[in-house]
Amino acid sequence: MIQGNALIIQSGGPTAVINQSLAGIMQAAQSYPEIQKVLGADHGLHGLLYEHLLDLSKEDHNIWLEIANSPGAALGSARIKPKAADLERIFAVLLAHNIKFLFYIGGNDSAEAAQLIRAAANERGVDLRILHVPKTIDNDLEVTDHCPGYGSVAKVVSHIIAGDDLDNRSFYNSVKINVVMGRHAGWVAAATALAKKGHIDVAQHDEVGPHLIYVPELEFSPEQFVKDIQKTYDRLQRVTIVVAEGIADQLDGNFIDDKDEFGNPLVSSSGKLGDYLISLIKKKINYHHELGKLRTRADTFGYLQRSFVGMASLVDQQEAFKLGSMAVHYMMRGETDKMVCLKRVSHTSYKVETSLCDLALVAQKTKLMPRSMLNKAGNHVTEEFYEYALPLVGHLSELRALQATRVQQKLNQYIRAE
Amino acid sequence: MIQGNALIIQSGGPTAVINQSLAGIMQAAQSYPEIQKVLGADHGLHGLLYEHLLDLSKEDHNIWLEIANSPGAALGSARIKPKAADLERIFAVLLAHNIKFLFYIGGNDSAEAAQLIRAAANERGVDLRILHVPKTIDNDLEVTDHCPGYGSVAKVVSHIIAGDDLDNRSFYNSVKINVVMGRHAGWVAAATALAKKGHIDVAQHDEVGPHLIYVPELEFSPEQFVKDIQKTYDRLQRVTIVVAEGIADQLDGNFIDDKDEFGNPLVSSSGKLGDYLISLIKKKINYHHELGKLRTRADTFGYLQRSFVGMASLVDQQEAFKLGSMAVHYMMRGETDKMVCLKRVSHTSYKVETSLCDLALVAQKTKLMPRSMLNKAGNHVTEEFYEYALPLVGHLSELRALQATRVQQKLNQYIRAE
Repeated sequence: MIQGNALIIQSGGPTAVINQSLAGIMQAAQSYPEIQKVLGADHGLHGLLYEHLLDLSKEDHNIWLEIANSPGAALGSARIKPKAADLERIFAVLLAHNIKFLFYIGGNDSAEAAQLIRAAANERGVDLRILHVPKTIDNDLEVTDHCPGYGSVAKVVSHIIAGDDLDNRSFYNSVKINVVMGRHAGWVAAATALAKKGHIDVAQHDEVGPHLIYVPELEFSPEQFVKDIQKTYDRLQRVTIVVAEGIADQLDGNFIDDKDEFGNPLVSSSGKLGDYLISLIKKKINYHHELGKLRTRADTFGYLQRSFVGMASLVDQQEAFKLGSMAVHYMMRGETDKMVCLKRVSHTSYKVETSLCDLALVAQKTKLMPRSMLNKAGNHVTEEFYEYALPLVGHLSELRALQATRVQQKLNQYIRAE
Repeated sequence: MIQGNALIIQSGGPTAVINQSLAGIMQAAQSYPEIQKVLGADHGLHGLLYEHLLDLSKEDHNIWLEIANSPGAALGSARIKPKAADLERIFAVLLAHNIKFLFYIGGNDSAEAAQLIRAAANERGVDLRILHVPKTIDNDLEVTDHCPGYGSVAKVVSHIIAGDDLDNRSFYNSVKINVVMGRHAGWVAAATALAKKGHIDVAQHDEVGPHLIYVPELEFSPEQFVKDIQKTYDRLQRVTIVVAEGIADQLDGNFIDDKDEFGNPLVSSSGKLGDYLISLIKKKINYHHELGKLRTRADTFGYLQRSFVGMASLVDQQEAFKLGSMAVHYMMRGETDKMVCLKRVSHTSYKVETSLCDLALVAQKTKLMPRSMLNKAGNHVTEEFYEYALPLVGHLSELRALQATRVQQKLNQYIRAE
């Protein structure tokens, strides 16, 4: 029987539930005497390279529930890709600390890193087991039905958009753009559609936002964008729009300043895409309203979406914990070189099971939204998406708008002096 | 006894609880037969000018709790200042619809509008009662201890910053700037300090963010800003910073594009201030770290702060409702030309009562943070602020970070190839 220490790595962008998986691993590891000590890599792969390892057995036993409920990567994270020399060093550190079990909590970049370490272990004939525990708000990993972190970010952005749409509705003549995360896939942008489902009065669903959603899966046409807005504006005299940051790829790309080691553009915290889209609207939209000029605003949600405190999805928390603990059980049964997946086994009443898939099916791959979850016009979601995403979010806050019955007018029309 | 219809106006930026005050007025109005009908102004003063009035008696009786829990101004809002010709028109509409009771839910600009209408009523010898119900996330109204809307935005931004600080902590070498609302006063920025109080492990309070907070009350010095960041960076190798959008006033003002009719700059949804501050840091901060280059990010929270769904403060909700209902009771006792205020009667265990103050004490005035709530260095809050603000927010989500005990190193230092 293989025996030794375990190492947990957290990698990539944190989520609201990434520490649930950490806590799940910690809990399950207690049951296996072959796991001697559980160590943590301080700041992802950096911890392994620079031999900054944390002794997790030194933490108080009672903290793990609180750690699980705290967003951000409790061990620290990193976004680096192991180079050839790095792999040499990694195996020196693994050997020095008798690490035989490696748990990698991360997204598709982390799966690639895990694969590189795996291949290097094979070359060296090192007895090392590696399992990958999925985590990404982007929900863009292959094979698994969805990714831990997604349900919570879906809950956060759908609540934000529900409020933002009511805020926007407070004003006449208002076009509001919201830029959400999603460099390659539109899962987060699509999730804002759930805002409509929180409204109690379903007769109002056509009126409540988000009215338009744009995702990176489809080519972004500035001309069509303006036409879509005009159409909604003509109907409602206001528009609430959601745009995934990734639609930038289709434009001239001027606002993409920087890339990380995996070649991902870093756009989340720039307001440039929103500013550009507003400038399109100001130039092109025709509006006629007695109440004055067009109000245009753009917000970029940035990093606050992913590590939000106090609004995690319960389903998401439970699944993230379970995938962590199942990774330990699978590994102790001898499994390695795989990712732990969620498989939806019932659609009528939501139910998932865990399974395993080869790392190669996940690494460097991006699961885009299927065309069938996006409407024909390419500017909103379909019923299929709602059925997919609603169970992952759980409870939606209940909202209502007034029927707003107008009192009959008694006076002549008023023309306000400029 | 004066008899007639009542009109409710919602004005200025919406909040998460502005409809609680609306619901409070609706509920209390039922008890007074002298109030014949309750009307709503559709989109604030616009509704009055253009005779767009809503008959609130036509709404289903059971909806008001759901409306109260929905953010945004349910009646619609506006940001306009009545001109001389407008006042003439306003009185024509009030007369045509037999409106004798006016409830104005708004901030200091609305108080000014209410005052103008009040003065015009006196000139005309019109029997019109007006009471102002305070509402503003800015918390900058005079006389009242605090403003409905503030407790909820304080809860939202403190939760966001708590998560953002843990997210920032996940990375090495990271400086994160967050721009929050507050054009003239720092109350919202200061509220982010409450994020520290959610951490269970008080020994970590020096380490958790926000580490630096800048408010419009104090002159913003770019040089001191960089020095403050360097000092925190040297201690923790990361910094979480909060800046009120209003510090822009002290700079060259380039990023202020537009002003409303009250002369307020419209900066909330521009990322320019954040970008400018990041450029300062990139130029000036000295960092030395084996783990790579400085990570700098800036987010501007924008409009999502104020109409957030699912995270209202219970205390705030209850007080907003109560001020609405008390406005009706006060007016039916003959009161007019006043604002309904909250008065803190006990500090040891939080307790408030309602009172009245003259509109003139509130209109066009801004209550800034007292210097005693800001620390000597002018970059954080004092214990006095925590005591003031904590009861308004209510429950904080409990968070924890790891102790992170390092394992003793066994290998030589690693120098990673560029």
